[in-house]
Amino acid sequence: MDRPEILMAPGPTPVPPEVFLAQGSPLVYHRGPGYGALLRGVTEDLRRLFRTEGDVLVFTSSGTGGLESAVANLFSPGDRVVVPVAGYFGERFAGIARAYRLDVRTIDYEWGREVRAEDVAEAVAEAPTKGVLVQHSETSTGVVHDVEAIGRVTREAGVLLAVDAVSSLGAVPFEADAWGIDVAVSGSQKALSATPGLAFVAISERAWDAHREATSPRFYFDWSLYKESYDLPNPENPFTPAISLMQGLAAALRLYYQDGVEAVLERHRLLSSAVKEGIRALGLDLFGEGLERAWAVTSVRAPDGIDGNQLVARVRADHGIILAPGQGPLKGKVFRIGHLGYYQPTDILRCLAALEMTLADMGFPVKRGSGVAAAQEVLSAGASPG
Amino acid sequence: MDRPEILMAPGPTPVPPEVFLAQGSPLVYHRGPGYGALLRGVTEDLRRLFRTEGDVLVFTSSGTGGLESAVANLFSPGDRVVVPVAGYFGERFAGIARAYRLDVRTIDYEWGREVRAEDVAEAVAEAPTKGVLVQHSETSTGVVHDVEAIGRVTREAGVLLAVDAVSSLGAVPFEADAWGIDVAVSGSQKALSATPGLAFVAISERAWDAHREATSPRFYFDWSLYKESYDLPNPENPFTPAISLMQGLAAALRLYYQDGVEAVLERHRLLSSAVKEGIRALGLDLFGEGLERAWAVTSVRAPDGIDGNQLVARVRADHGIILAPGQGPLKGKVFRIGHLGYYQPTDILRCLAALEMTLADMGFPVKRGSGVAAAQEVLSAGASPG
Repeated sequence: MDRPEILMAPGPTPVPPEVFLAQGSPLVYHRGPGYGALLRGVTEDLRRLFRTEGDVLVFTSSGTGGLESAVANLFSPGDRVVVPVAGYFGERFAGIARAYRLDVRTIDYEWGREVRAEDVAEAVAEAPTKGVLVQHSETSTGVVHDVEAIGRVTREAGVLLAVDAVSSLGAVPFEADAWGIDVAVSGSQKALSATPGLAFVAISERAWDAHREATSPRFYFDWSLYKESYDLPNPENPFTPAISLMQGLAAALRLYYQDGVEAVLERHRLLSSAVKEGIRALGLDLFGEGLERAWAVTSVRAPDGIDGNQLVARVRADHGIILAPGQGPLKGKVFRIGHLGYYQPTDILRCLAALEMTLADMGFPVKRGSGVAAAQEVLSAGASPG
Repeated sequence: MDRPEILMAPGPTPVPPEVFLAQGSPLVYHRGPGYGALLRGVTEDLRRLFRTEGDVLVFTSSGTGGLESAVANLFSPGDRVVVPVAGYFGERFAGIARAYRLDVRTIDYEWGREVRAEDVAEAVAEAPTKGVLVQHSETSTGVVHDVEAIGRVTREAGVLLAVDAVSSLGAVPFEADAWGIDVAVSGSQKALSATPGLAFVAISERAWDAHREATSPRFYFDWSLYKESYDLPNPENPFTPAISLMQGLAAALRLYYQDGVEAVLERHRLLSSAVKEGIRALGLDLFGEGLERAWAVTSVRAPDGIDGNQLVARVRADHGIILAPGQGPLKGKVFRIGHLGYYQPTDILRCLAALEMTLADMGFPVKRGSGVAAAQEVLSAGASPG
């Protein structure tokens, strides 16, 4: 029997039935009051989530399209930007900036390290700099960088701060305005558990000022075209939107706010802690710095003699559960468990139970049930050592 | 009771239940054989539809994103391009080219006119030119330009030809290779009747050569990044795709090929003819040149004393049927009926019947049933004067 596979990768995340129903329902025509209300509701909900008084725009694209919109709308060719690179998505942000002919000063970290605000301050001070591009949650390692501290540096230096919040928004605390973030980018298929295809971009007043000066070419991702259409008496899109995905996203946001931001964040903290204690109890090593903040993704070192990719492939083949392999230099060395989005405690227990079985099958000495038991303790206590 | 509105606009078009079910079904994870097979099937089906031996890439974006990909991948700043403008989407293609700092030579027509291949030849001959950007079906007027004749001009002159086939592909005959088209762009929500959010781009060998030389910045729409991922043993996307929309598109293509290309095109010809005869029988005037080829959209002049926008608004309010208003200089002067996609004869009759009622309500002298009768005759005969 064909069964749907179980997503425990850091995106796409498990999609609630309400979202599937909404995106399988008749289209709301994109010119008219129905879509206007839909767009207004979605952007209002997203503004609350980003914690911003500024604008939020929604693009039909992957998160990468949202990141590109930040580069194309903020900068001009030759502008110097500082880009900390501590994982795959740091490399991507740097790659986009290079494609737009910016003067890219990377700060290169070993993958798994946290970006240090002091390093950013130093790199910014070297030469006239226009902006800093950084991940909040670096999905490839699970590490959540201290964007608040980096925001203090960029405000002090008077440079723009663009943050890749794709796998952090909604999963870990985020404060666009309070932290001085000028552009924050996220996507539909992460903590919100809608399906992929929509990117959201939060834009500060300083970012709008920069946009007006920036000469990089852009059209599909041109913020002004969206803003003009959003500001019509009946809001609409400049280009035909992915209406079905917007309907699904609206349903996902309704579910999110049924619990409320605080409760959902607390759930992410708790489930993350349960995963991490379960992994430790199995005798595996966690990977990456700042684990107490890594509520979205847990990276685990593959044990000696076991290839991480093979482990991921076997868990998928034997149990229909999709974990994520290591990327780049971590290929084969780590595997990743995604726990951002619409998960409940039993999803975590199921995943650990499957992992125990596969590890045992691959010859790793596992005390059966020990990972599950450790996670149960965390979940029962509702609190944990992190 | 809330009823879904009935789409008779040129996109989005009516979505079959099979498509809604597919995009409301569990996600196929985008790394693995399931998605690989889905992507391969969709691109193969699209290659048959474009009639090309070249590559077809699928972007998560509106059709405009696909058009931007043509500009960003083919050209460098300062390149001269010829852009015939005979409607709203001609203006859009020119606007994208200007955003990328190309040297844009428009050929300006009164809206509703056909682009003449001789005019293109003349404009190309004026100065060294890199490419021609033109609509096949100009959605804002319904006019289908003779891209085959334009293709003879561009091949003769050795310049690139990029075609906006967004509302033509699948609705009217299209021959990417035989007509010498280098880039053709279409979208999911038109003749295929999937939902909006996916753009497809067909790319010739000459276009790939130009891509390698072109220096315009691009990342999300960079053809090479997609091609590399498609060419993996298990095809995938460089960035997380709109998986649900791909599942819906695959279902839409299955339905399309149940009938086959020839039969679907013949249906479009017939329904278009039924609409046009029905409109004539009501005493209204059709708008635009080359009506015998305008199988996707019919533009109609609003009768004296009746504003086209008001007519569209009343048909929507009174009958729940969404027609499209005139755009730009045609605002208020024409209205448009979309008949591309998943329509059957009774959809056309229903639309004409509703239009008759609203025209009568607005004081236009209508012989009740006359438009419907004329359309019935066309449909019964299965052939028509065009």
